[in-house]
Amino acid sequence: MITRTDVEQAAARIGPYVRQTPVVETGPGAFGVETSLLLKLEQLQHTGVFKPRGAFNRLLATPIPAAGVIAASGGNHAVAVAYAAGQLGASAELFVPASSPSHKAERVAALGAEVTVVDGFFAEAHDACTARQRETGALMVHAYDMPDVVAGQGTVGLELLVQAPGLDTVLVAVGGGGLVGGVATALGDEVAVVGVEPTGCPTWNSAQEVGEPVDVEVGGVAADSLGARRMGSIGFAACTARDVGSVLVSDDDVVRARELLWRDARVVAEPGGATALAALTSGAYTPRPGERVAVIVCGANTDPAGL
Amino acid sequence: MITRTDVEQAAARIGPYVRQTPVVETGPGAFGVETSLLLKLEQLQHTGVFKPRGAFNRLLATPIPAAGVIAASGGNHAVAVAYAAGQLGASAELFVPASSPSHKAERVAALGAEVTVVDGFFAEAHDACTARQRETGALMVHAYDMPDVVAGQGTVGLELLVQAPGLDTVLVAVGGGGLVGGVATALGDEVAVVGVEPTGCPTWNSAQEVGEPVDVEVGGVAADSLGARRMGSIGFAACTARDVGSVLVSDDDVVRARELLWRDARVVAEPGGATALAALTSGAYTPRPGERVAVIVCGANTDPAGL
Repeated sequence: MITRTDVEQAAARIGPYVRQTPVVETGPGAFGVETSLLLKLEQLQHTGVFKPRGAFNRLLATPIPAAGVIAASGGNHAVAVAYAAGQLGASAELFVPASSPSHKAERVAALGAEVTVVDGFFAEAHDACTARQRETGALMVHAYDMPDVVAGQGTVGLELLVQAPGLDTVLVAVGGGGLVGGVATALGDEVAVVGVEPTGCPTWNSAQEVGEPVDVEVGGVAADSLGARRMGSIGFAACTARDVGSVLVSDDDVVRARELLWRDARVVAEPGGATALAALTSGAYTPRPGERVAVIVCGANTDPAGL
Repeated sequence: MITRTDVEQAAARIGPYVRQTPVVETGPGAFGVETSLLLKLEQLQHTGVFKPRGAFNRLLATPIPAAGVIAASGGNHAVAVAYAAGQLGASAELFVPASSPSHKAERVAALGAEVTVVDGFFAEAHDACTARQRETGALMVHAYDMPDVVAGQGTVGLELLVQAPGLDTVLVAVGGGGLVGGVATALGDEVAVVGVEPTGCPTWNSAQEVGEPVDVEVGGVAADSLGARRMGSIGFAACTARDVGSVLVSDDDVVRARELLWRDARVVAEPGGATALAALTSGAYTPRPGERVAVIVCGANTDPAGL
């Protein structure tokens, strides 16, 4: 299980390479929510998502072999690994499922990584990646279920402790559990953490119910970023140890929250990035009077047309 | 002439009503600029633009008569005045030129203000507004050429002093000169200020050349927010006293800067809001090695489609 010390060490390692993303307090009434909210604007991170934090920590915590870095992903993780490897002067090989939009593979290639498109979905890309890794000995970077990755994502939580003193609660979207697990570890017992998921991607909700990570069907508007098939064991252990809450929202709630972020704060988020706010705007989570609540806006890799 | 004390008093007045907008340091290389930049994200302000600062300061510094508040504008100022009046429980009457897009008048009306659409352009709306103000005695809020308005906008500069210690230079877009004049006053002699304008809206550039504010032809991509016909006398006096610099950029530079803001920081800005960055991305302003530069992103009232 990762500890706050792991997250603190991650912060020291990755500090020169990531943006300390800012917090804005939006005032009572914004988004139709009575409570004044603190938005952690992590979508301003390099590559438009929190994921370079975990990627840099993995790459900086372990000597990178001559074969470079290797990972499987068709989305935000792929871009983050390609970016981090490029910044550190390492070569990167990414296995992207054919089911991902081709512009994502192009973005990864534009960052200098070697891209292999694999027929099928993430599972097939992951299998091809694992086989290749055994051949080359390259450094594997898992999208969420690796201690260094989870510790890296947790640096979002360390920043919040400094930026938002007196915080009671943090709402965070859950996919594979890297971000929520890291943040819950960083915040310790001082601040409550609530994991928010669309009903189409209920990895934490299901794991909590069953008592261990289980496969779920994934789909819906946020599946491109939150659609892990099951929660990672490290994130699950961290969330269980910290008694992280679970709230489900509908796809409509997510779409509405995304629109409200633009309307009332001129923040653009991808559906997964608006999911934590949806818990508040839908009424699924109602703060008690005076509760100081932060919402992590975790990504903006989206087409802003239509906002 | 306004003083830093005026700006400090404005900050105390408006504090409970405006957002303290955050600063993000984007790191070397972002936007193709070698220097690591500090973006002051003022487009996150209520109504998507800095203008509520000046409007609130005007409304809080003077008792509001029973006739309420009155102003002429077809754009950002109108929305800011309607918003501020609504928050303070005052009635507002806005004179909007027929040349403005109808959705702007609708947004003002949705904020609870009474809207009168006047045939013609801003000059006609301003004349109708002035005549009406003489009848009713309502409190006039000029878009930029009033001491309380300029002092209110200057609070952006006071925040920067705290948020970005060691700052050398601030780049800020110039329209009527309210924001640049207020910011230059707030920053005093500690920090250099450079006014940036598209060649189509050169109010400060022309005024500086001639030695006093002069009428200019306005047009181009940022005219909806920066297209004042001449610089206000208060902004001009403040900029002259503080030796504010002047840089011109092309419309293409502005369009490109707007695209880069989205590409490398997931920030959406209107053309006027991307104009200050355009000075750097176009090479019109080149920081010396080690120069610590802040860029004010001043508005995002724009259609994000196409980014």
